[in-house]
Amino acid sequence: MTAAHPASYPVDDINRAKRRYDRAAYDHATVHALLDTAALCHVSYVIDGQPYCTPTLFWRDGNRLYWHGSSASRMLRNLSEGEPACLTVAHLDRLVLARCGFNHSVDYRSVMAFGHARLVEEGEEKQHALAMMVNRLYPGRTAGLRASHPQELKATSVVYMDIERASAKVRDKGVLDDEEDYPLPIYAESIPVLTVLGQPQPCPRLAPGVARPAGLDGYQAGRRLDEVLVQAHAATFGADN
Amino acid sequence: MTAAHPASYPVDDINRAKRRYDRAAYDHATVHALLDTAALCHVSYVIDGQPYCTPTLFWRDGNRLYWHGSSASRMLRNLSEGEPACLTVAHLDRLVLARCGFNHSVDYRSVMAFGHARLVEEGEEKQHALAMMVNRLYPGRTAGLRASHPQELKATSVVYMDIERASAKVRDKGVLDDEEDYPLPIYAESIPVLTVLGQPQPCPRLAPGVARPAGLDGYQAGRRLDEVLVQAHAATFGADN
Repeated sequence: MTAAHPASYPVDDINRAKRRYDRAAYDHATVHALLDTAALCHVSYVIDGQPYCTPTLFWRDGNRLYWHGSSASRMLRNLSEGEPACLTVAHLDRLVLARCGFNHSVDYRSVMAFGHARLVEEGEEKQHALAMMVNRLYPGRTAGLRASHPQELKATSVVYMDIERASAKVRDKGVLDDEEDYPLPIYAESIPVLTVLGQPQPCPRLAPGVARPAGLDGYQAGRRLDEVLVQAHAATFGADN
Repeated sequence: MTAAHPASYPVDDINRAKRRYDRAAYDHATVHALLDTAALCHVSYVIDGQPYCTPTLFWRDGNRLYWHGSSASRMLRNLSEGEPACLTVAHLDRLVLARCGFNHSVDYRSVMAFGHARLVEEGEEKQHALAMMVNRLYPGRTAGLRASHPQELKATSVVYMDIERASAKVRDKGVLDDEEDYPLPIYAESIPVLTVLGQPQPCPRLAPGVARPAGLDGYQAGRRLDEVLVQAHAATFGADN
């Protein structure tokens, strides 16, 4: 991190946490690290006053976020000219059962990123972005794939959004009851929620002798997806990205 | 399902799938079943042209969706008068590694619900909604909790949205390559992604003799969260809700 790369996103009415101030962070390190824990995000955008909330794959390179879809998709038709958008990642980490309704909660990690979404132009920049879409998940994988056909490149659009504002919010407290409620004869607990990998299933039509590449070693049954994704991002973009 | 309860949501420019028509469904049964697999959703709304994408807990009762937050939250201040909103649920079910970049994909389940969000009014209706917020997750739980204080009820707002339009999209295909690519010496696989429960952690400050209620039996380590949530919803609202 250099002086030209400020440590925090600016905070104003759009991204300032309106409540639970203690749970909010705006620094690049926290925001970026949380973004890298996910492959799936939700993007919000507006068409004729109607908000849309679209789940999609995304990835981060520095303070730029990318996502993609068919050139025909509703989202991309409208975002290509620099439309305001909000990209959000959220993990549910724990269900929290307290001694009264009000203190029922969940532990979570979330980040909201705001900016203007624009279309990546055709050519080298788009080809690079499409390679990163794969390599972000599976480091180095594109080098060994069948090369893209021109019509495949044409059929896919890539959108980018430089993060202008962002906020991360984390709750990691488990059960937190009012002091006077603890002695009550009421059961309370927290239940962890984990998103993990199952057993990888090789394609049944693999050509003879084709083995699983070492680049996929991180993807092992039982591992937490968020941890695998953080490692894959660092392997592809570098730990200081 | 009666004649007064049509089997499908209307389809128009807002919710019609613009691509991948084969993956889309609009019928109540599919849309509702998918909504019930999740506790966490993302809600999109617009303030001064700026879209927001907010992760939040939600629940369904018939074709009405509810979510909540502090009375002070940005979302609720603006949605109380009937603001257009979009509530989305998405599960990432499988990472799909194909033989070319273009056919890399994920299997997923998602549903987008559109409508106008409004504030649940103070009084009995709101108290019932707040009870359902807990009971939707933990059937019958509110009956055994410390009763809510008036200031707690006041501090929580509940928003509802009748589903006006909705679409569900599912991909469940694993690896799907171009026919001519299967013989290539390239590794392909699919990797299941599962969201499961960890070991429940009783509150360390439980009063002596307080045992885990039978109503929580569904919440066992290793179970899939989506399956537990569907069962809990049916236990609280009935299987035909």
